[in-house]
Amino acid sequence: MTLTGHSLIAGQAVAGEGKTTFGLNPATNEQLEPAYTLITEDQLQAATSAAAEAYASFSTLDPETHAGFLEAIADNIEAIGDDLIIRAGQETGLPAARLQGERARTTGQLRLFASVVRQGDFRGVRIDPALPDRAPLPRADIRQRQIPLGPVAVFGASNFPLAFSTAGGDTASALAAGCPVVFKAHNAHPGTSELVGQAIAKAVSDAGLHPGVFSLIYGPGSSIGQALVADPAIKAVGFTGSQSAGIALMRTAAARSEPIPVYAEMSSLNPVFVFSGALKGDVDALAQQYVAAVTGSSGQLCTSPGLLFAPVGEDGDKLAAAVGRAVSACAGQTMLTEGIAASWNSGAGALGAAENVDIIGEGTVGPTENAPAPTIFGTDIADFVANPVLHAEIFGAASLVIRYSSAEELIEATNRLEGQLTASLQLTEQDYPTAARLIPALEQKVGRIIVNGWPTGVEVGHAMVHGGPFPATSDTRTTSVGTLAINRFLRPVAYQSLPQELLPAPLLDANPWQLNRRVDGIVAEAANEKDEVNA
Amino acid sequence: MTLTGHSLIAGQAVAGEGKTTFGLNPATNEQLEPAYTLITEDQLQAATSAAAEAYASFSTLDPETHAGFLEAIADNIEAIGDDLIIRAGQETGLPAARLQGERARTTGQLRLFASVVRQGDFRGVRIDPALPDRAPLPRADIRQRQIPLGPVAVFGASNFPLAFSTAGGDTASALAAGCPVVFKAHNAHPGTSELVGQAIAKAVSDAGLHPGVFSLIYGPGSSIGQALVADPAIKAVGFTGSQSAGIALMRTAAARSEPIPVYAEMSSLNPVFVFSGALKGDVDALAQQYVAAVTGSSGQLCTSPGLLFAPVGEDGDKLAAAVGRAVSACAGQTMLTEGIAASWNSGAGALGAAENVDIIGEGTVGPTENAPAPTIFGTDIADFVANPVLHAEIFGAASLVIRYSSAEELIEATNRLEGQLTASLQLTEQDYPTAARLIPALEQKVGRIIVNGWPTGVEVGHAMVHGGPFPATSDTRTTSVGTLAINRFLRPVAYQSLPQELLPAPLLDANPWQLNRRVDGIVAEAANEKDEVNA
Repeated sequence: MTLTGHSLIAGQAVAGEGKTTFGLNPATNEQLEPAYTLITEDQLQAATSAAAEAYASFSTLDPETHAGFLEAIADNIEAIGDDLIIRAGQETGLPAARLQGERARTTGQLRLFASVVRQGDFRGVRIDPALPDRAPLPRADIRQRQIPLGPVAVFGASNFPLAFSTAGGDTASALAAGCPVVFKAHNAHPGTSELVGQAIAKAVSDAGLHPGVFSLIYGPGSSIGQALVADPAIKAVGFTGSQSAGIALMRTAAARSEPIPVYAEMSSLNPVFVFSGALKGDVDALAQQYVAAVTGSSGQLCTSPGLLFAPVGEDGDKLAAAVGRAVSACAGQTMLTEGIAASWNSGAGALGAAENVDIIGEGTVGPTENAPAPTIFGTDIADFVANPVLHAEIFGAASLVIRYSSAEELIEATNRLEGQLTASLQLTEQDYPTAARLIPALEQKVGRIIVNGWPTGVEVGHAMVHGGPFPATSDTRTTSVGTLAINRFLRPVAYQSLPQELLPAPLLDANPWQLNRRVDGIVAEAANEKDEVNA
Repeated sequence: MTLTGHSLIAGQAVAGEGKTTFGLNPATNEQLEPAYTLITEDQLQAATSAAAEAYASFSTLDPETHAGFLEAIADNIEAIGDDLIIRAGQETGLPAARLQGERARTTGQLRLFASVVRQGDFRGVRIDPALPDRAPLPRADIRQRQIPLGPVAVFGASNFPLAFSTAGGDTASALAAGCPVVFKAHNAHPGTSELVGQAIAKAVSDAGLHPGVFSLIYGPGSSIGQALVADPAIKAVGFTGSQSAGIALMRTAAARSEPIPVYAEMSSLNPVFVFSGALKGDVDALAQQYVAAVTGSSGQLCTSPGLLFAPVGEDGDKLAAAVGRAVSACAGQTMLTEGIAASWNSGAGALGAAENVDIIGEGTVGPTENAPAPTIFGTDIADFVANPVLHAEIFGAASLVIRYSSAEELIEATNRLEGQLTASLQLTEQDYPTAARLIPALEQKVGRIIVNGWPTGVEVGHAMVHGGPFPATSDTRTTSVGTLAINRFLRPVAYQSLPQELLPAPLLDANPWQLNRRVDGIVAEAANEKDEVNA
C-alpha cells in the first residue's frame, strides 16, 4: 500500500488544511516520509457527520454481515504483510517480534468480537410477555434490547501502535457494538495508522457499508481531539494515554450540552506484593521475572509493575540484591518518542532525588537514541505512604521496591493507593491467610488481581478486566480489553406493546437471529425459547 | 411506630444540630408534627463512615441472607399498616388509593430484587479456564465477577413518597447490589420517610447486619446533599428530581478527586404521536385517556405526557375538541407542595403567553389548597420546533397539543427534542409504514417506546427501561426502574490464577451459590457447568 499522508474521511483521502507533521524514528531521531497533513476543525465535521449518517444502517446490520466485516478488517491487516511491521518498527522503536505479537493480538481481538457479534448475548434481549389477566391491572408486553450509543471517537495510544490504535481494542469493540468510529491517529505513528486505516476502509467498501462507518483523522494533538469530543454527533469516547490528556477529555465531555461517557485508560502503578513464602523458592528467578516485566517493551506497558512490596529481613535483602543484579544486566531499549524518553528521565530523576529513596540497581544506556538505562529504586513503606512523589507513575523502565514489615502495613499502603489496573501477589500456601486479608482491600483499588504471575501480557478473552478505579480509568464500571468492552457502547431501550411489524429483529417472536433471550427474568436459550414467549 | 423527628444514623436516632423543619399538608398548608431536626455536615460523616465500614460484610453476604433482608424490609413496610398511608397522604396530598398502589409497588420491587439476588445472574461471572498447552503462550485461568461499587447516596423524590423514596427503586437496587445506602430524605415528606426508615433499620438489625448498611438523614436541601455527594466514602448517587438539582449533583460528582457516577432521573416531556388511523376509532375515548394520563396524580409523574402530536384537519380537530371537553370536566387536585404548585403556575403561564399558543381546554381549580386547574394548550408544529419555551417541562397537570401535517414534520420535531423517558404512538395498521419511519428517530431520543398505550404506570419488571438520553437522565446507559437497575451499582473485577482458597464464593469451582456462569464466552447453567470448568 502507498502512504498518502492524508486523512481518510468516509473512504476518501483528504488533504488537511492545517500544518503538516512527520513520523519520527525514535532510534535515530530521523524524520520519516511522507509528510502528514493535519485537518482543521472545519474539516473534522465531514467525518463526524458522515459517522452520524452511517449510524442508521450500520447499527441495524444483520449479525453475519457485521461479523464478516470485522473479520475482513483482520484479513486486510494481515494482507499488508511485513510492510506494516517495518513501518511500525520505524515509527516506534519496538522490535519486530513484539510487533508481530501485537498484530496477532489485534487481528485476534477483531475475530473474537466477530464471534461476539454472531453469538449475540450483548444485545441484552429481555422479554416480559403480556399478562392480560393479571389483577388488579393487566401487564403489557414489554421487550428490551441494547442499542449502539452512536458515533464513537477513538484516540490511538502511542504504546500499542496496532492493538490499541487504529483497529485496536476501542475501535473493535465500538464497531462490534454497531457504532461508527472516528479515529484520531496518534501523531507518533502516522504511517502505521494509515496502513491500518486503509485496511478498515477497504473492508467498509467491500462489505458495501456506508463509508461514514470509519474515518481516520490526523490533527494537531489536543485541539482537534477536544473538538472531536465536543462534536454533537459523537456519543462516546475511547482513549488510552496520559492522565492529563484523559482528564481534559473527561472535562470536555462533561461540559457538553449533552454530556457523553468517556472511557479513558490513563495510568497505573500495578503493585506487586511479595509474601515471605515466595522468598523460600528461587529468588533469582523471581527477580528476573520482575525485571523482565519492568523492562519489556522498554517499560511502556499500561500494566508494567511500578511498585514491588518485599518483606524486610534477610530473604527480602536477597531479593533486592538479585533484582539489582538482574537489572544491571539490562541495556536500555529505544522508547516510543523523544518526549516520552524525556518524561521518563524527569520522573526517574524526581524519584531518585526523593528522601530515603536509593537505587537498587540500574542497567546501561542503550546503543540507540532515547534508550535510557532501566533503573530500580528502593525505599521503605513508611516513606512510601508519606510521600506522594513515590506514587507518581513513571512511564518506562523504572520501578520502586518497597520494604514492609507486616500485613497491616500492606493494607494501610493499599488503602492509600489511588486506583490501579492490577495488583499481583507472589505467594505460597503459607501466605494464604495474609493474602486473604489483603485481597478485599485490593478489590477496592484495582480491576485485576493476579497470583504468582505478572501483570503484563493482558489476555484478550471473555473474563479479562483491563480497568479499575479512577485515575487508572475514567469509568471503573468497564473494561477496555476483552469482550465485556462492547458494553461500553450500548444503551437499553424498551418497546411496549409493539406489533410484530414494528419490532426490531432481535425482539421478534420468531427470533430470526437465534438469540438467547431473558424471558420473565430467566435466560432462555434460543432453541428452547419460542414456546415461552408465545405462551 | 412513633415519629422522633430525628435522623436515623446507623441504627441510632440522632438529633440534628442544625435548624428544624416540619412536614406541611399541601391540601391545607398546615404544619404537621413533629419537628424534624436537620443534621450538619459534621454529623453527616457518621453516616458515610458507618456505610464504608458496613461494606466489607454487606458486599459479601450470602444470597439467602441478602434476599431475606430485602423481603423483611417489604414485610416491615406492610406491618406499618394504615399509619403509613395516612401520614403519606397528609404530607403529599395524594389520595389513599394511589398511595396503596404505590406501597404495593414499593414492596413488590423489594421482593423482585430479592428474587434477583437469589437468582444471581447480576454477579456477571465469567470464567476463561487455563489453557496450559496453548501455543505460542499458555493461557492463565481468569475469572471475572461484578462487585458492588461501595456506599451509595440516594435522594428521595417528592412525587413518589414510597416507590422512589426511602425504600424506593434506587435504595432497593443499591441494597440488592450489596451497596450500603445513605438516604437523604425529601423534606416534603419527612414523616413518611421516617416510618419507612424505621422499617429498614429494623430489617438491618433483625438480620444481624452492620448498622451502617442504612442511614436516613434529614438536612437542609442542597447543602447537605452536595456534601453527601462530595464525601469520599460515597461511590455512586441515585437521584430523582429536577434538572437543576440533578445537574448540580453531576457537577459535584465530576469535580471530586475521584469522580463517581450519578444516576439522576430529571425531566421528560413524554411525547405522544397520534397517527391518522387512530382517529378513525373512538376519538372521545382517546381524548379521555390522554387527559387521564395528564391529570392523574395531579400530573406529577415523570412519565406524564406533556406533548401530543395530532394531525391537522377534521379528524384532528375532533380530537382537540374532545380533549377540550374532557379536561374541562376535571377539577384540580392538590399538588405535592406549595412550591411545586407555584412552579406549575409559572410554567403554565409562560406557555400560555407564548406566541401562537392557545388554550384547548381547562378544568376547574380544586377545592383544596394548591390545586390549580388542569390545562391543555395547543399550537402548531412549526411554532413548536422554533420556540424553546414550548419544550420546557411543566411538572403537573398541563400538556400541549401540537398539530402536524406530515411524517417529515414529526421526524424533524423528534430530532429537535431533547432526551426523553418515553414516546407513545397511537396508531392502527394503516399507520405502520409511517410509524416505522419515526421509530428509529425516537430510539435516539427516548428509553421506552409504547404503542397504543400511555406512558404512565411504569411496570416494574425485567424488561422495563425508565431512562433515556440526557437531560431525561444523567446516564443513558441505565434504567432506574426494573431489575436492570441493579447494574448501576456494580463493577467488574478479574482474578487471574487464584487458588481455590483465595477465590470469592461466586468464582469457586464448586459453584456453591449455583450461579449461571459464562464459561469461555457461553453461559453454562449452574446444573451443567461444573464439568466444563474442570475440563
